[in-house]
Amino acid sequence: MSYKILTTSNIEHYLLSLRDIALFFNGAPLRIEEIGDGNLNFVFLVTSTQECSRQLIVKQAVPYLRCAGERMIYEIRSLKHFATLCDHIPTIYYSDECMSVLIMEYLADHALMRKGMINANIYPHAATHLGTFLAHTLFKTSTLSLSSHEHHHLIAQFIGNKELCKLTEDFVFTAPFMEHETNADLPELTDLAHEIAADIPLKMHILTLKHLFMNRSDALLHGDLHTGSIMLNRHTTYVIDSEFAFMGPMGFDIGTLIANFVMSYVAHGVHGNTQYQQWILSSIQTFWSTFETAFRTLWQATPHNALMAQGFASPELLKQYQDAYMLQLFQESIGFAGCEILRRQFGIAGVEDIRGIADARLREYANRHAVALGRRFINAYLHVKNSEDIIMLIKASHAG
Amino acid sequence: MSYKILTTSNIEHYLLSLRDIALFFNGAPLRIEEIGDGNLNFVFLVTSTQECSRQLIVKQAVPYLRCAGERMIYEIRSLKHFATLCDHIPTIYYSDECMSVLIMEYLADHALMRKGMINANIYPHAATHLGTFLAHTLFKTSTLSLSSHEHHHLIAQFIGNKELCKLTEDFVFTAPFMEHETNADLPELTDLAHEIAADIPLKMHILTLKHLFMNRSDALLHGDLHTGSIMLNRHTTYVIDSEFAFMGPMGFDIGTLIANFVMSYVAHGVHGNTQYQQWILSSIQTFWSTFETAFRTLWQATPHNALMAQGFASPELLKQYQDAYMLQLFQESIGFAGCEILRRQFGIAGVEDIRGIADARLREYANRHAVALGRRFINAYLHVKNSEDIIMLIKASHAG
Repeated sequence: MSYKILTTSNIEHYLLSLRDIALFFNGAPLRIEEIGDGNLNFVFLVTSTQECSRQLIVKQAVPYLRCAGERMIYEIRSLKHFATLCDHIPTIYYSDECMSVLIMEYLADHALMRKGMINANIYPHAATHLGTFLAHTLFKTSTLSLSSHEHHHLIAQFIGNKELCKLTEDFVFTAPFMEHETNADLPELTDLAHEIAADIPLKMHILTLKHLFMNRSDALLHGDLHTGSIMLNRHTTYVIDSEFAFMGPMGFDIGTLIANFVMSYVAHGVHGNTQYQQWILSSIQTFWSTFETAFRTLWQATPHNALMAQGFASPELLKQYQDAYMLQLFQESIGFAGCEILRRQFGIAGVEDIRGIADARLREYANRHAVALGRRFINAYLHVKNSEDIIMLIKASHAG
Repeated sequence: MSYKILTTSNIEHYLLSLRDIALFFNGAPLRIEEIGDGNLNFVFLVTSTQECSRQLIVKQAVPYLRCAGERMIYEIRSLKHFATLCDHIPTIYYSDECMSVLIMEYLADHALMRKGMINANIYPHAATHLGTFLAHTLFKTSTLSLSSHEHHHLIAQFIGNKELCKLTEDFVFTAPFMEHETNADLPELTDLAHEIAADIPLKMHILTLKHLFMNRSDALLHGDLHTGSIMLNRHTTYVIDSEFAFMGPMGFDIGTLIANFVMSYVAHGVHGNTQYQQWILSSIQTFWSTFETAFRTLWQATPHNALMAQGFASPELLKQYQDAYMLQLFQESIGFAGCEILRRQFGIAGVEDIRGIADARLREYANRHAVALGRRFINAYLHVKNSEDIIMLIKASHAG
């Protein structure tokens, strides 16, 4: 149906007119709470008055921002597509691109991973879940799995997500590495900002990585997979907020996630939480090893695809190509992780883990430590071989 | 308008109903000759009965092959787009995607470059024209020139060209390197075909290049830029038949062209035409140096683009990045050239330059020489530095 604003007064009528939603609530009257800030989306928590555990979330893009409606289109498309490929996506009960509406599971007992990590919560399964999630979404949307036609079709479905790709190009790969009015106003980092703006070898790598981001269509990316896009508890893990989704280089999702783990590591360093830091490092290793194992397992089960026709590759060639592919993917991931770490220090959008450190001296130390790590990641990305290299590099690091 | 088959009896009425075409012929009665083979397209040569130099070509896709209509769509879109970017495209007088009709300049005194090269014709300006053509089409459709949105828009316009991309994936990058029923039946090359099918280092490179072809959207490619897609005489050069156009890696167009020059070099070798061979080698050098100079000149004139925001790069960084970019582009071009050379020996579509050699012994020699060169190109592509390296490599080559 065409767009109509949902409000606390008309939403019950709308929801009960949708067959699947009416069935979900079994015809009971509904309690409606508006819980969003209304900046980009209206968000409603809807609860059955007869069975308070029957709850769901209704998200609708606001009508007065074209970009909000566009975001919702790509969030709907990508979440629905991911849900066909793997677990770890909240149940989608209903969606309507024209209405800009997404109706999904309410994750009542889950927290944002960023908040949880700031509070030093241990999530025993998060790394495994996230490694599995990315192995499935990335492998199954790539030319290692799809036919050539299916791959073209996916590109076509997401190529219109121009605005958010441009945001990433500008705010991850560009502004933080130059003088730019959008950057964070952090006078205490001026010396580093100047150093980086003048660091030609570093910026050569950044241009190469930005060019990859803009010109390679490996797989359907979440596009913004930081710890604030993950909701979890000790048992289950869900990925949300995939409005940046597009067909891009696999390493971007992997690297963004690793970077946000690393920034939490840095933040806990200034608080002396070495045990939590240890958990983060082992999570990075578990994440990558789970990802790599699951990705290779999927590949072994799908040896013929758009890239490799039946009969093209001997088992030996396949193995060698897989090894080379995984190595390049790891390296690109580390390069992208470095960009994400640096842009979170200098750019408009910091991470609460570090910007939220109350003590200015400690915060600056964390910033400088993160900057040192981001630079090391980028300068070393073409030379790292495995996650042990990265763990060593992190352990050996300190504020520059 | 919707599709209607054009025939010698209704085409005059149709043409004179098109304002621009009626003006072109100044209302004169027309002479119609059907000159195509009707396999994929009907082709008509239309001449004014009052002024015999007023001529044009009408191409219409046949109605009984869906793929013919698709090809015409992408040929129309790409030729029209190229025509806005550079010279060397025949004048387009009219086009209609729904009618699958393209009406264009008749190149009366031009020959197919492949035929001309088989006849050892010297074209003094071809290399310069083709280098200029590719510099403009590739640069101006890339993230080095366009805005991010424009680049997305171009991808969207050509992502539907699935069938022809798949043809290239299959017949350039796959079947020729394995046992495949579509390959040419050339028992005298069986030993080499087996060697190549078992050559793991070579096939690792081929997989890498195929992956690039399928996953990188650098620029709008012609997609099939061999010497049979070029019409020329001693003075002017035109590129035609761009139905394979899509957003892909720049090196593919450059490499396809170089490969077809190299195969002509090989063919003239068996005839002992060393002087013509010398012209081909100098044409390869002129082609690349013209391309590189024109590409860099365009880049210097467009320093701010989707990849590089104003203020991001110092002149020194820009220069270093340009040097690295041009080197990688040259290397990928040589890799793609190697694939094109090999697939033309083993695959379904040979080149007349070599398959047309009457003497079986000489033909086999040429095949083997081409195979040796194709393998050298692929094995060396990540190590070559400039066109001199390639010229030396060609001069030092002989049948394997």
